[in-house]
Amino acid sequence: MPAMDFQTDPARYRHWRVEYDGDVAYLIMDVDQAGGLGDYELKLNSYDLGVDIELNDAVQRLRFEHPEVRAVVIKSGKDNVFCAGANIRYLGKATHGDKVNFCKFTNETRLAIEDASDNSRQIYICAINGNAAGGGYELALAADHIMLVDDRRSAVALPETPLLAVLPGTGGLTRVTDKRKVRRDRADLFCSIEEGIRGAKAVEWRLVDEVVPNSKWKDTVAKRAHEIAARSDRPKDAKGVALTPLTRRIEGDRVAYSHVDVEIDRGRGLVNLTVRGPSQAVPASPEAARALGDRFWPLTVARELEDAILHLRANEAAIGVVLVRTDGDAEAVLAHDDFLSGANGDWLMREIRHYFKRVLKRIDVTPKSFIALIEPGSCFAGTLAELAFAADRSAMLIGTREGDNREPAAIMLGPANFGFYSMGNGLTRLQTRFLGEPATLDRLKDRIGRPLEAEEAVELGLVTLAYEDFDWDDELRVMLEERASFSPDAMTGMEANLRFAGPETMETKIFGRLTAWQNWIFQRPNAIGEQGALKLYGSGVKPTFNKERV
Amino acid sequence: MPAMDFQTDPARYRHWRVEYDGDVAYLIMDVDQAGGLGDYELKLNSYDLGVDIELNDAVQRLRFEHPEVRAVVIKSGKDNVFCAGANIRYLGKATHGDKVNFCKFTNETRLAIEDASDNSRQIYICAINGNAAGGGYELALAADHIMLVDDRRSAVALPETPLLAVLPGTGGLTRVTDKRKVRRDRADLFCSIEEGIRGAKAVEWRLVDEVVPNSKWKDTVAKRAHEIAARSDRPKDAKGVALTPLTRRIEGDRVAYSHVDVEIDRGRGLVNLTVRGPSQAVPASPEAARALGDRFWPLTVARELEDAILHLRANEAAIGVVLVRTDGDAEAVLAHDDFLSGANGDWLMREIRHYFKRVLKRIDVTPKSFIALIEPGSCFAGTLAELAFAADRSAMLIGTREGDNREPAAIMLGPANFGFYSMGNGLTRLQTRFLGEPATLDRLKDRIGRPLEAEEAVELGLVTLAYEDFDWDDELRVMLEERASFSPDAMTGMEANLRFAGPETMETKIFGRLTAWQNWIFQRPNAIGEQGALKLYGSGVKPTFNKERV
Repeated sequence: MPAMDFQTDPARYRHWRVEYDGDVAYLIMDVDQAGGLGDYELKLNSYDLGVDIELNDAVQRLRFEHPEVRAVVIKSGKDNVFCAGANIRYLGKATHGDKVNFCKFTNETRLAIEDASDNSRQIYICAINGNAAGGGYELALAADHIMLVDDRRSAVALPETPLLAVLPGTGGLTRVTDKRKVRRDRADLFCSIEEGIRGAKAVEWRLVDEVVPNSKWKDTVAKRAHEIAARSDRPKDAKGVALTPLTRRIEGDRVAYSHVDVEIDRGRGLVNLTVRGPSQAVPASPEAARALGDRFWPLTVARELEDAILHLRANEAAIGVVLVRTDGDAEAVLAHDDFLSGANGDWLMREIRHYFKRVLKRIDVTPKSFIALIEPGSCFAGTLAELAFAADRSAMLIGTREGDNREPAAIMLGPANFGFYSMGNGLTRLQTRFLGEPATLDRLKDRIGRPLEAEEAVELGLVTLAYEDFDWDDELRVMLEERASFSPDAMTGMEANLRFAGPETMETKIFGRLTAWQNWIFQRPNAIGEQGALKLYGSGVKPTFNKERV
Repeated sequence: MPAMDFQTDPARYRHWRVEYDGDVAYLIMDVDQAGGLGDYELKLNSYDLGVDIELNDAVQRLRFEHPEVRAVVIKSGKDNVFCAGANIRYLGKATHGDKVNFCKFTNETRLAIEDASDNSRQIYICAINGNAAGGGYELALAADHIMLVDDRRSAVALPETPLLAVLPGTGGLTRVTDKRKVRRDRADLFCSIEEGIRGAKAVEWRLVDEVVPNSKWKDTVAKRAHEIAARSDRPKDAKGVALTPLTRRIEGDRVAYSHVDVEIDRGRGLVNLTVRGPSQAVPASPEAARALGDRFWPLTVARELEDAILHLRANEAAIGVVLVRTDGDAEAVLAHDDFLSGANGDWLMREIRHYFKRVLKRIDVTPKSFIALIEPGSCFAGTLAELAFAADRSAMLIGTREGDNREPAAIMLGPANFGFYSMGNGLTRLQTRFLGEPATLDRLKDRIGRPLEAEEAVELGLVTLAYEDFDWDDELRVMLEERASFSPDAMTGMEANLRFAGPETMETKIFGRLTAWQNWIFQRPNAIGEQGALKLYGSGVKPTFNKERV
């Protein structure tokens, strides 16, 4: 497979378009049947990863480029069908790894839609004009308000189980029970009915929020969108920030961005990921920051880091370990954090903080071992210190290096570490880290803004290991050889458990419970075997199941 | 494989013994190397399902037969080893289904230990005298207080990932982060170290509660046990209730208990499970109930139902659907509930309620579709109504049957439905069912003790479907044929998601997140393939891993 690229822009969209009506945007799904990534047709607005990359881009641009948009209506550009869900030919041919990656990315996109409604007050409405089946209805479930046309045909459905022997795994099962709070026995019925549920019953079962007669459809959708837009606190007269193409050079085993570097070491099965601190002074005002646009450091680095993570996930499956380093001035990072925080009322600063939160969450669900290396010259401070707290382990150099006259490495905490960036479990990384000793959080707050060198950082529990210069290389070599010797699957399962201590939320349930079961099913012969439902779908041949319940 | 039998008694134990010292019991693991269920040796106190069936029995008997025991010390009867965990030969040879079933049962046993500490105030201590590795340490994690001998050798370890390429899946990962609240990076290190962690560091990392020098070991364990026993509110002078052998007849495809019937219909891949209401009047007093011993109806029916569920899980994998019926007098069920409730201060009544709670929880994690059939003559009332609420669906007959002069079927609610029986998620089944409409709970409370016939039960949301006599057979036939046509794996995954709406707790995380990932790994070639770690363990040959991270 060619490398997947997660960057796109509206001029290149083949499957989506956006129309604007004042404070309402219409995000229109009109999948180009011939525009799939592989050798299959994307019939009935079914989607593959390429379609979702465009959706992700559109959702992101709406937040940054269109502050004036306060409600977004997702609808279909085709007659009589809303969306038939993930394309079955695509899923049937995809490797296990590709299926898992696809589901993860689509899950993240739907969570980004919910994040926009909840935190940007750019509120999503789904206007289902035609059948919404499987992933189609799962997309609708991400919206705050679901409208269904009452034309005696259009229905919502989760037919994955009866048709394909897999789960509605893009959040479907979880959102039905935990967001829509559908009664469990109704959910069981609903997930067993191929043709789905329509009309008043869909409202009664809480599957949709309202049904609207065909004759009043367009007007009611527009009316509802403007009503919902009126609830938003988005600015009326702000100017958006254009997300221009990333500065990115791919050369052999290196991907170089303006502030992020990715260097793959295939021999050791690892990647060196370096994030650079600000190369610019803090802007004088929010206006000045907006004038920088996507060259404003926090936004630049969030975009580059996100692209790097997505690239590593999709295109570098054999790389098991990510060594995370930072390079730059810790004070400058904290100054940018202060700026983001002080200008909190500013819509753009709010967007950037929520964006960085989402990028960090992508790390939390990335199936690679992250090891933060905290060395002289690094800037694990505030926002960038979250990279160390998101890592599975961290190692810090004690003192200085021979022949290196830089100061000893130090971590610096800032207010960002105590509230900017919640994980999927609803807690900050430090809250999650210190679940067993909440008093430590208070001790840490007292140290905001102070350089914490290795011994103190270890004592405070902020880093895992600390070595002096003469041990560093050997200790690291042993650690990395050991990690490389472990089963990649066991690592994935272990990290998926250890990273999410504490409460589970709808979001962590989707990535933990639902996704884990779906991944299990994605390996079962009843789904993917030669006689399995996913393989045989559409062939006219009925699948043959091993009847044993496990 | 011969059918697994979950019934045993101390006279037949080969692997455990119990010693009593006043209010302290010592539960001693001394596995008979030659006593495995299959062709392998249970070295180093390693265990298979047979060992855990005895443990489950011992834990249960301590609660019912030994009210005087207020603290239980789990320790090893062997020198220099506490427990090496699940036997690898056993796991390596077991089918996927057997592995999953084994982990489920062992998880339930460990949760039963925690339930005893929390709810019976029969508090568990684990005294680790030797290495506790893998499942050995996971057993310790179930205790309220973990003591480790400080002999410079004994360690606690979770070496599953480095040694076997699987997870510490019997609650290990979850209890480390969520019960012991070990910092995530330390947990990552700990789960990567084959030899584990010992001494003061084990305390510092919160892996154990205390380490004790070898010279003071025995005295300190006894002292701690008596201190902890003193915190319990168990009665001082109560007499236990003997758990005598079940009344059980296995004849072909039928298992007949005194109050439970299991009839397997292999043609349709289903089982008819019937639970009968009380055949005795409510006892006049708690003393009279205790005199009935295990013939007191609520205890009898809990034991029989539990055995039936375990039998179906372990021995009838190809049966996908359980049709649940009740038969008897609803008022008599409610009267027994009232008795259990009124005598709430009585230790035995408390035990019975918690026991029924655990039996219902076993249903919640049983991978079969439960469909409750509510017909004339049934007694879905109070405690037994929970069977309908635990079911994936329920169907109720409207009115009477031709030629049957019994009253129309009715559900009756009682206080038991509003608090006796929490699910793993910490909510009652009705709270979980009505997450989206909490006001319904108040409406239901107003109807306690009133017969609710089909139309009203449907309107209140207590049952899923209602049919009149002339439709009943056809509707049911269609429903069951449909269910039988679905992939058993997809059903398992779907039910594992839909049954647990709302909050996740440590318990649901173990059965959802951890178990689902473990089941995934239990299918991966890196674990179970010819070159996989589980297959090659002990052979001297190193496993070969596919390095792709999924």
